[in-house]
Amino acid sequence: MNQAAPTPAKVWLVGAGPGDPELLTLRAARLIGAARLIVHDGLVDPAILALAHPEARLISVAKARSRHTMSQAAINALLVREALAGTEVVRLKGGDPFIFGRGGEEAEACRAAGVPVEVVPGISAATGAAAAAQLPLTHRSSASIVSFVAGQCKGLSDQDWTGLAGHGRTLVIYMGVATAGSIAEKLMADGLAPAMPVAVIENATRPAMRVLRAPLAGLPALVAEEKVASPALIVIGEVAATPQTHKLRALALEALA
Amino acid sequence: MNQAAPTPAKVWLVGAGPGDPELLTLRAARLIGAARLIVHDGLVDPAILALAHPEARLISVAKARSRHTMSQAAINALLVREALAGTEVVRLKGGDPFIFGRGGEEAEACRAAGVPVEVVPGISAATGAAAAAQLPLTHRSSASIVSFVAGQCKGLSDQDWTGLAGHGRTLVIYMGVATAGSIAEKLMADGLAPAMPVAVIENATRPAMRVLRAPLAGLPALVAEEKVASPALIVIGEVAATPQTHKLRALALEALA
Repeated sequence: MNQAAPTPAKVWLVGAGPGDPELLTLRAARLIGAARLIVHDGLVDPAILALAHPEARLISVAKARSRHTMSQAAINALLVREALAGTEVVRLKGGDPFIFGRGGEEAEACRAAGVPVEVVPGISAATGAAAAAQLPLTHRSSASIVSFVAGQCKGLSDQDWTGLAGHGRTLVIYMGVATAGSIAEKLMADGLAPAMPVAVIENATRPAMRVLRAPLAGLPALVAEEKVASPALIVIGEVAATPQTHKLRALALEALA
Repeated sequence: MNQAAPTPAKVWLVGAGPGDPELLTLRAARLIGAARLIVHDGLVDPAILALAHPEARLISVAKARSRHTMSQAAINALLVREALAGTEVVRLKGGDPFIFGRGGEEAEACRAAGVPVEVVPGISAATGAAAAAQLPLTHRSSASIVSFVAGQCKGLSDQDWTGLAGHGRTLVIYMGVATAGSIAEKLMADGLAPAMPVAVIENATRPAMRVLRAPLAGLPALVAEEKVASPALIVIGEVAATPQTHKLRALALEALA
């Protein structure tokens, strides 16, 4: 073994889930608690970073819209540099690393540099939000297909979403709040009914969670009037009208009391 | 409070994730360890059931294909009956309760009966398998849309999957191994290229995991020759060819050694 080239340490691409620290996986929690170096993005909840080892070095590479602190290339280079120097790295990402997390690019950069990499899945925003809002993404009677897309400004008009939303299908849009107006227009231009139910889930799984509903045509007004802010998810489809039995439940509990 | 009608206890719809016990969420692990009654389906790994409290009552409602031990209506009735009698229930489901888990129906049954229900998301098979196989479901250069469908025999021919697979999109098929032949035919009849990369991930996240690859046209032969068995996931799209740098990595590690 050449002393000038230590064995590369491993990079762990770890999903931090949707926000609630209890929705970390056991493996993610263990890795976060043991890591000496955590490279995290801005979507990771402070309560999760608080689980880090007291002597851990934490590097934020926050990628909130319009305040990029580090380019993807620079992040890749950081992971590779630290691992090649022998430091095991936990790369902590909101949600799941392989659902709009650019984990694929980081894994490629590591592999290309001879750095071993492992991926730990996380609860993606869609399933976290669906559970918290009790809104099933698939349902035997109303949704046999579920699709995830990203609604960021860049490239929105180039994206072909035809057929992803409609009867029997659920469409979940990540990062779509800023472009809600264009999204509603685009989908209605594709033939989606203006009355199609939409749910907007803001701060899913966090104490400040809000679930707002409107027909598709009313989405832009809803987002504007309620001042919906990121992180928020847009769910479009018949399932977005559930749960419809909240009132029934309240009545039943009253009857039992 | 009427003594004949105790306060209904809560039903927790809990995702058990893809198999590996370390991919449970912290909340799921806590609930499983504390529950006195766990109603679980057949996909839940024995290593996960082993985390149950020693005095817990475990009821299997196994729903493996062709050996249903309990109908969905009977499962709903069981959850409601136990909760109305005052027993808190952990309903433990493979993957995520709201992605092909029929959690929506169980939540509805509970709400309609006045039983409080909470949903704990789980790592769905798709993200668990993708992480384990290092196969990103979205990728900046090759997939901006990911869709999940179920490939069970029943209703397969009625399902319209047009547009879900193709350039720039990833299609993940749950429970599709038994119908792999029909699936390949259906997608090619819809115009998908016979050369489109496909990955089949069997026993994802478990020690016996296998990742097999073929072009779409070769999927039926692959499944037959390799005797692929459920649980297995089919991933169709350009990302299914990744990681392509395994050889590069081996070379790089050799060079560093």
